[in-house]
Amino acid sequence: MKQYDILIIGAGPAGLTAGLYSARSGLKTGIVSKDIGGTSNSILMIENWPGYSGSGAELMKKFYEQVKKYDVNFIIDEVSSIEKEKSGKEFIVKTKKQELSCKALIIATGTERKKLKIPGEVEFLGKGVSYCATCDSFFFKGKDVAVVGGSDCATTSALALSETSKKVYLIYRGEKLKCENINKERLKKKKNVKIFYNSFPLEILGKEKVEEIRIMTKDKKQNIKIDGIFIEVGSTPLAEFTKNINLKMDDEKFIHVDENMKTSVDGVYAAGDVASGKLKQVVVSSAQGAIAAKSAYNWLSGK
Amino acid sequence: MKQYDILIIGAGPAGLTAGLYSARSGLKTGIVSKDIGGTSNSILMIENWPGYSGSGAELMKKFYEQVKKYDVNFIIDEVSSIEKEKSGKEFIVKTKKQELSCKALIIATGTERKKLKIPGEVEFLGKGVSYCATCDSFFFKGKDVAVVGGSDCATTSALALSETSKKVYLIYRGEKLKCENINKERLKKKKNVKIFYNSFPLEILGKEKVEEIRIMTKDKKQNIKIDGIFIEVGSTPLAEFTKNINLKMDDEKFIHVDENMKTSVDGVYAAGDVASGKLKQVVVSSAQGAIAAKSAYNWLSGK
Repeated sequence: MKQYDILIIGAGPAGLTAGLYSARSGLKTGIVSKDIGGTSNSILMIENWPGYSGSGAELMKKFYEQVKKYDVNFIIDEVSSIEKEKSGKEFIVKTKKQELSCKALIIATGTERKKLKIPGEVEFLGKGVSYCATCDSFFFKGKDVAVVGGSDCATTSALALSETSKKVYLIYRGEKLKCENINKERLKKKKNVKIFYNSFPLEILGKEKVEEIRIMTKDKKQNIKIDGIFIEVGSTPLAEFTKNINLKMDDEKFIHVDENMKTSVDGVYAAGDVASGKLKQVVVSSAQGAIAAKSAYNWLSGK
Repeated sequence: MKQYDILIIGAGPAGLTAGLYSARSGLKTGIVSKDIGGTSNSILMIENWPGYSGSGAELMKKFYEQVKKYDVNFIIDEVSSIEKEKSGKEFIVKTKKQELSCKALIIATGTERKKLKIPGEVEFLGKGVSYCATCDSFFFKGKDVAVVGGSDCATTSALALSETSKKVYLIYRGEKLKCENINKERLKKKKNVKIFYNSFPLEILGKEKVEEIRIMTKDKKQNIKIDGIFIEVGSTPLAEFTKNINLKMDDEKFIHVDENMKTSVDGVYAAGDVASGKLKQVVVSSAQGAIAAKSAYNWLSGK
């Protein structure tokens, strides 16, 4: 069984930056991930990673190439479970193909955006369909957009979009928004926001890019002309594989971390979207990866 | 008096990233700074900003060029003081040349590394003289280095360097190191670390790069052959100009912030090296700038 000082699970911004810092601190480092780049690969245009404008996939390639300069083992494989080794001093990481052991772990597996699973959603990804208002609102300046969802995430997006877009349609399946009151009040004051309650989208329509959304309100169907649709129906943290080590999770199943990215289990750190924390951005995930690696290094040095 | 939604003071990694996020969220944004790039400009080689290898100055230029794409006012000037406007709703930022007003403030002025003020220190900066072991230890792999200082910062650097460098000389003016016990214990176990107590450096010597350091131990002078010297005698946060608004500071005079980068005063945020926080790195400062801007935006939206 191959042994590491540190294994990082996931190779998005958090995992790759953790790998960079871990390798530079001289630890024997492995990164286990089913791919390189994670969900960042699907961002068509990143303009808020300082000093860079381009696709998410291209940026992740730059991250990867930099980590590859160091002695880091990339293991392209899916982790099925993590266990504590019998003595309790090491962790066993089981993948589909092999077992690995390590003294410290960084979980950086990110999240999966919940999908609407309606026609047009996959086809128009990056052509009007977006899962991130913070990232993409700029492309819809002066245009009409829809936001699907009723959570804080969705209403915050609708509010942000109302500042730059012409018209914002908020489409929500419930009767009352699930967000903080302050956001409800703010939405009421917005003249360019129209809320459809008891509504859900049936289909996203267009030729080369999004042009319309077909929605169902109670029993009535209607089409709304839009240039973009932001799907904000939540994210699912990808942390199921950690269940054997019983990490403390927050209410929405994100891994609870302190300011040093330490989880509730000694020697286990989490960084990026899978960890608790409000602002999900490449630069924040990346910083968390650096902090997690530094914390793991400090902990290993003290053993 | 020119009015802004948000004024950011400082234009290093934290300030520039805060500017990027603030402008993208549609706030009227100004950045007041005596220069662009701050102390990052003096880092000869940055290899731990993911996806980039090059000088600090070149990276800061990239940050700056990106922010300039948006409607951000750069005011190259030194801030002398900050006050609350009479109604208490706005802040007045006084610079040497003018007065500006804003609804929210982000302080990102960084720190100033304490200098030894000995011959050779300025001449060999980037040629063997460094103020950051995390940044530069990699360049001294297998070589002999000196670390000056006895704090946690200095001892952590000495420990990290002992993993990659051949020999590490720790030069400290006191009789007992001021660091955590665990680090004292760790240093004892390191065979390639030699500690000079009651010692201080007199001069850094060399031709084109650092070759020797001359130190004084009690009454005895001696020269030690080294390839690099890490000066870790502390940093001074540059926050003196904030005294009129009475921000809560930590014991070492860094600005106290919560996880949202909020200071003790409503509407005032801090990010980067000037803020409390353990890991001082470009990627961490940058993330803090993004978080501060997002928090300021949320606060302003709720007013």
